Amino acid sequence: MSDYGKAFALMRDAAQGPWRDYTRHAFVEGMKDGTLPREAFLHYLRQDYVFLIHFSRAWALAVVKSETHSEMLTAVGTVNALVAEEMQLHIGICEAAGISQEELFATPERAENLAYTRFVLEAGYSGDLLDLLAALAPCVMGYGEIGTRLAAEATSETYRDWINTYAGEDYQGACQAVGELLNQSLTRRIGADFEASPRWDRLCQTFRTATELEVNFWQMGLTP
Amino acid sequence: MSDYGKAFALMRDAAQGPWRDYTRHAFVEGMKDGTLPREAFLHYLRQDYVFLIHFSRAWALAVVKSETHSEMLTAVGTVNALVAEEMQLHIGICEAAGISQEELFATPERAENLAYTRFVLEAGYSGDLLDLLAALAPCVMGYGEIGTRLAAEATSETYRDWINTYAGEDYQGACQAVGELLNQSLTRRIGADFEASPRWDRLCQTFRTATELEVNFWQMGLTP
Amino acid sequence: MSDYGKAFALMRDAAQGPWRDYTRHAFVEGMKDGTLPREAFLHYLRQDYVFLIHFSRAWALAVVKSETHSEMLTAVGTVNALVAEEMQLHIGICEAAGISQEELFATPERAENLAYTRFVLEAGYSGDLLDLLAALAPCVMGYGEIGTRLAAEATSETYRDWINTYAGEDYQGACQAVGELLNQSLTRRIGADFEASPRWDRLCQTFRTATELEVNFWQMGLTP
Amino acid sequence: MSDYGKAFALMRDAAQGPWRDYTRHAFVEGMKDGTLPREAFLHYLRQDYVFLIHFSRAWALAVVKSETHSEMLTAVGTVNALVAEEMQLHIGICEAAGISQEELFATPERAENLAYTRFVLEAGYSGDLLDLLAALAPCVMGYGEIGTRLAAEATSETYRDWINTYAGEDYQGACQAVGELLNQSLTRRIGADFEASPRWDRLCQTFRTATELEVNFWQMGLTP
Repeated sequence: MSDYGKAFALMRDAAQGPWRDYTRHAFVEGMKDGTLPREAFLHYLRQDYVFLIHFSRAWALAVVKSETHSEMLTAVGTVNALVAEEMQLHIGICEAAGISQEELFATPERAENLAYTRFVLEAGYSGDLLDLLAALAPCVMGYGEIGTRLAAEATSETYRDWINTYAGEDYQGACQAVGELLNQSLTRRIGADFEASPRWDRLCQTFRTATELEVNFWQMGLTP
Repeated sequence: MSDYGKAFALMRDAAQGPWRDYTRHAFVEGMKDGTLPREAFLHYLRQDYVFLIHFSRAWALAVVKSETHSEMLTAVGTVNALVAEEMQLHIGICEAAGISQEELFATPERAENLAYTRFVLEAGYSGDLLDLLAALAPCVMGYGEIGTRLAAEATSETYRDWINTYAGEDYQGACQAVGELLNQSLTRRIGADFEASPRWDRLCQTFRTATELEVNFWQMGLTP
Repeated sequence: MSDYGKAFALMRDAAQGPWRDYTRHAFVEGMKDGTLPREAFLHYLRQDYVFLIHFSRAWALAVVKSETHSEMLTAVGTVNALVAEEMQLHIGICEAAGISQEELFATPERAENLAYTRFVLEAGYSGDLLDLLAALAPCVMGYGEIGTRLAAEATSETYRDWINTYAGEDYQGACQAVGELLNQSLTRRIGADFEASPRWDRLCQTFRTATELEVNFWQMGLTP
Repeated sequence: MSDYGKAFALMRDAAQGPWRDYTRHAFVEGMKDGTLPREAFLHYLRQDYVFLIHFSRAWALAVVKSETHSEMLTAVGTVNALVAEEMQLHIGICEAAGISQEELFATPERAENLAYTRFVLEAGYSGDLLDLLAALAPCVMGYGEIGTRLAAEATSETYRDWINTYAGEDYQGACQAVGELLNQSLTRRIGADFEASPRWDRLCQTFRTATELEVNFWQMGLTP
């Protein structure tokens, strides 16, 4: 398992069951051995593009909710990486697969997709930066873990590009930065022993719910 | 069909298919003829209690987003009706059915429930009062329509209390007030011919999505 | 000094200088001995009406940001008291003084007024319930303290109605309820020793800034 | 007068008096002829650094409130320019003037500063992207106009660096982009004849209030 810092490790442990369901979902295993149907992958990719729009908005909300220059810089960096890079990547892969930008932009949002991003955004609007980060972390770091594992274990080249993106240095660096942001923002607001705070359980619950919504997202991917 | 004003009628017409699926769902028809299993009803009621917490928060957000004294008064009145009356009703029915307040408060939120309330709250946070009201209207007025129809058509006494609540003068008055608020807030922000505005389609889309999420909510009610 | 609970007492002590400037401002002393010009009082009252609109919105935001039934009930109760009672009181006093409702509603908002309410609302939007309550507390409880002291010390009958409102049982009960909400929401989120948390200083800073903005508000009252 | 598009021109015309007070304030004229005391300039610069933190947060909120890819890109670009460039510029000038980063970061926020940024953020949180942009525009475009005029009219080299920043191609390009964003987001939400909408007056009022808060900000700059 990847090391993205103390807070993430604790939250992941508290969501053990859903975390395994998420990071070892049939969709993921299908990318590993190449058995995932192309149609399912493209369907997922289009939904993921819609997802990234709202996920970028949620990271922009993290800028709004930042209290320090350093919190702000990490959040701005993540918004940039999402809007300027990851979304462009999806546009590129889709175009190569014959899905035009217009078609991609017009993808109708599936209920599982909507549920996840609205949960994250609402957690952020109603709470402070910690509530928002607890909801954002499973997606960022889960993809980091999946990428790293599949880079080592993949037995097929079919989804190698996707795997390399999330296993790559850039993405892994982003996971490290978000893990660090999580540790520091918790320490700043709660203290070094943040896991002893009455808030901790609710933050872990937010992380767990977002993880369960990731499971539903993969599941949706399997049913175009 | 109930008359709750011009804007509501137009939005309902634009969401015709999902509106029918919502207001004539098997769960609703089961309350009409008394075939709905008690277990499904109590399961629904417990989820609806959790729903009402977040729905009340969303109506409180309508107070925050109000621009006139009159908008404020209607929204405050609705928050009160929800928190002081409708939620108490649920507590009462559940207690009578042997579900204690502690058990009710600890109901785990189902994904279909979460999806709906977070969608409404996020629409409100990210938009203005109109975006919020378009997301709030289907629940308020749909229950009004269902209540009125079932009061006339019910062939069983099993769910008469529930039906009477939503068919009753108090609840119907609330639907009228929200219909009026919808008309006035649209006119104030867009003009009397609000349906000609470029925003109109997106507001109808928000209404439609909330209606679809109502369908999913009933469906969840059938599977305790 | 009034006893509105532990958290309030600690926050007030941490803002000692500004708190004295606020609760013993020349405007307040002028109400005590009746030397405050009527014109200043009416000017203040009109601005305070505009203030109450936004202050009610901020308390509605506290409903949105509530995590428990009990937090919700106190916040809903406060919104009601503000919208249904305190605002009506201002309308009444102004009408008796020859200021029509239309004129009152059209009062141009002074910069000192705007600064205060937008600070409170933004603290609430960007933070959680604690950040919002820290910004709301100085107004609620300061008026409670001023009312109690002036009821005992006033040497003139000129502003007796105003004094009685804030010294009265209803208003003092509201101060107690908000003090209790402050204690409980801090304990729920941080723990019983909330004053040892790294957040505490920033919460006290929010309370202090709101207190300073109260001083500016009285000062504005003196210059119609 | 600079040409930053139709919507901006109309809003500026509707706020004519305050706009002149803002763009031709004594502080500005003092930079033009070099009579502005260095102490006032550095005091302003430190407050402006605190301002930029919250102004960047407000632009990040514009990303959250975006509905199209193109709205998102302009808003993300502006956040970047503010956080990565303009704030660094202030750090640099302050350091050259002997004000360390620690000292700069610890600058106590003046009431005129707080009033302005909280007004902008709250307008954005409570309204939609249009309400937010109407509050953001006066700062962005006013500095653009001031920079252009002073580049042509300055009779002293003392504040040439500051003037060149805002007269420069980069900053003027940002003003053009924001003017375009204003036009397009108005057209998308209201229609091509947006100035005929009932919302228009309130949007102009928001622009006007922000302009008045800019006047207060310059005034604060004169009194360290």
